[in-house]
Amino acid sequence: MKEILTQINPVFDHRNRLGIMSILAVNDWVEYNTLKELLDLTDGNLASHIKPLEASEYIIVRKQFVGKRPQTTYAVSETGKAAFRAHLDALEALVKMGRDDD
Amino acid sequence: MKEILTQINPVFDHRNRLGIMSILAVNDWVEYNTLKELLDLTDGNLASHIKPLEASEYIIVRKQFVGKRPQTTYAVSETGKAAFRAHLDALEALVKMGRDDD
Repeated sequence: MKEILTQINPVFDHRNRLGIMSILAVNDWVEYNTLKELLDLTDGNLASHIKPLEASEYIIVRKQFVGKRPQTTYAVSETGKAAFRAHLDALEALVKMGRDDD
Repeated sequence: MKEILTQINPVFDHRNRLGIMSILAVNDWVEYNTLKELLDLTDGNLASHIKPLEASEYIIVRKQFVGKRPQTTYAVSETGKAAFRAHLDALEALVKMGRDDD
């Protein structure tokens, strides 16, 4: 049990971060506003969850101008991909354990 | 995506709570000290995660004396079982989504 729990990555251990990573896992570059909409988050809430993912270098940020409009997009890094996979493995093991009552 | 995330139960949305629920899902009554050991938590930490689970009536507490020693044990309630199952379903859906890059 301890072994599984230590595999759960604290950086991913919140539903909104799982959401961000899941979206970035299947899409190459995703705009800030798209993330906000898909996850139904406020600016403050999205920013607070993006921050630790960025600090851990699990996601990459690109800021650019499209015409005169600034645009911020995000992608998952290779490190982030590997870390997220390990996290999903741990979650899967926990899900299996929690279901053993059936 | 929004639909999956709203199925993630905030009360369970922490690895230690997943751990507590997984242990209680497969064991009838578990002693406080056993939980502490299995999860490798301090008293304060375990108590802080037991509290919301108890407040939501997802787990049941039994306090009794074994000889002169007080003993606190926990079990999952029927409500807790159903809620945890729904949570695991949502996690599973998220895991599947996050793995779609393979």
